[in-house]
Amino acid sequence: MDPQDEVLSLVLFSGTDDKLNAAAVLAVGAAAMGRKVDVFLQYWALDAFRADRVLKDHGVAPEAGEWGHELVQRHGTQHWSELFRQAKEIGDVGLHACSLSMEMFGITKDDLDPLVDDVEGVAAFIAAANGPVTFI
Amino acid sequence: MDPQDEVLSLVLFSGTDDKLNAAAVLAVGAAAMGRKVDVFLQYWALDAFRADRVLKDHGVAPEAGEWGHELVQRHGTQHWSELFRQAKEIGDVGLHACSLSMEMFGITKDDLDPLVDDVEGVAAFIAAANGPVTFI
Amino acid sequence: MDPQDEVLSLVLFSGTDDKLNAAAVLAVGAAAMGRKVDVFLQYWALDAFRADRVLKDHGVAPEAGEWGHELVQRHGTQHWSELFRQAKEIGDVGLHACSLSMEMFGITKDDLDPLVDDVEGVAAFIAAANGPVTFI
Repeated sequence: MDPQDEVLSLVLFSGTDDKLNAAAVLAVGAAAMGRKVDVFLQYWALDAFRADRVLKDHGVAPEAGEWGHELVQRHGTQHWSELFRQAKEIGDVGLHACSLSMEMFGITKDDLDPLVDDVEGVAAFIAAANGPVTFI
Repeated sequence: MDPQDEVLSLVLFSGTDDKLNAAAVLAVGAAAMGRKVDVFLQYWALDAFRADRVLKDHGVAPEAGEWGHELVQRHGTQHWSELFRQAKEIGDVGLHACSLSMEMFGITKDDLDPLVDDVEGVAAFIAAANGPVTFI
Repeated sequence: MDPQDEVLSLVLFSGTDDKLNAAAVLAVGAAAMGRKVDVFLQYWALDAFRADRVLKDHGVAPEAGEWGHELVQRHGTQHWSELFRQAKEIGDVGLHACSLSMEMFGITKDDLDPLVDDVEGVAAFIAAANGPVTFI
């Protein structure tokens, strides 16, 4: 198999705006290069995809400090949710909510932003992962 | 090589219960799908695998807050160490302690939980990595 | 393609000394095993590669605590920048600054340590990623 035909499997765990933005940029870049992208939303990343929380301030990595926090909030001409929307428009990009994390939060598909395609178990996600598995 | 025959190589660096749990869930999922899993324990993840520390509270990612901390501690019907035990039972899952991190902590194999199979250098880990390399 | 001929693509996002050191150790290990390594510097990792900041104390992961912080600073016989230098000497290791992060920080190539080879967009990085994509 041509390596560029491999799926880029992204496990999104972290819920800060800087990491969600880095993940979205990777997804857009991969989609633009014609690679299929599979995103698996867990824990605090899944929480950030709740319909009523997507656009709030989710903070940044601790090492960024207040300076980095302001920089990320000020710089972003496009929100990470908008970048994921673009990635889905230009390529084959699926967003799957981890069933175990859904259960932990006690939420259903209706609580999530419409960007999220479905709820999936980890075995199904791994079964589709025929290339890099990137944890963010 | 069939992509599903590739080893899932997990570098476990982080020592919080949420990330250790996410890693254990990935390992169980991959083992259930018949994939070989190689875990390389470094830094704070290795520290969490010390025999006398496995079951203590290791906290969660900073963005989780107190709410997320309680959620993780309360929700877990199974501890991550128990999930790694199951992964080893159902599949070909090896846990290797990073020799450099062992040296940094000044500990020996006897200080670790019996789940850990051996101590290994990074070159040996990389040599066995013929598929995804996931850093958690 | 032989899996060991695949590039190890490292996205360096985090800017703490423990993660930068773990990344450098992976790069040295992969280079020693004859693997090509491509490093993409983003956000706080890129900030840590500024010429005037490389050698300062960049802290450690929050779960390390003060004990872990002292351990990392005391133990390191070699700084992570020195390890990246060695990785470049023994193998085919490229360090690329993410163009979007450069823009966010408002800096140019001259502001970075000479270890950094060039500035690159995410699409070019993904196009060269024919193997594992590891986010640190």
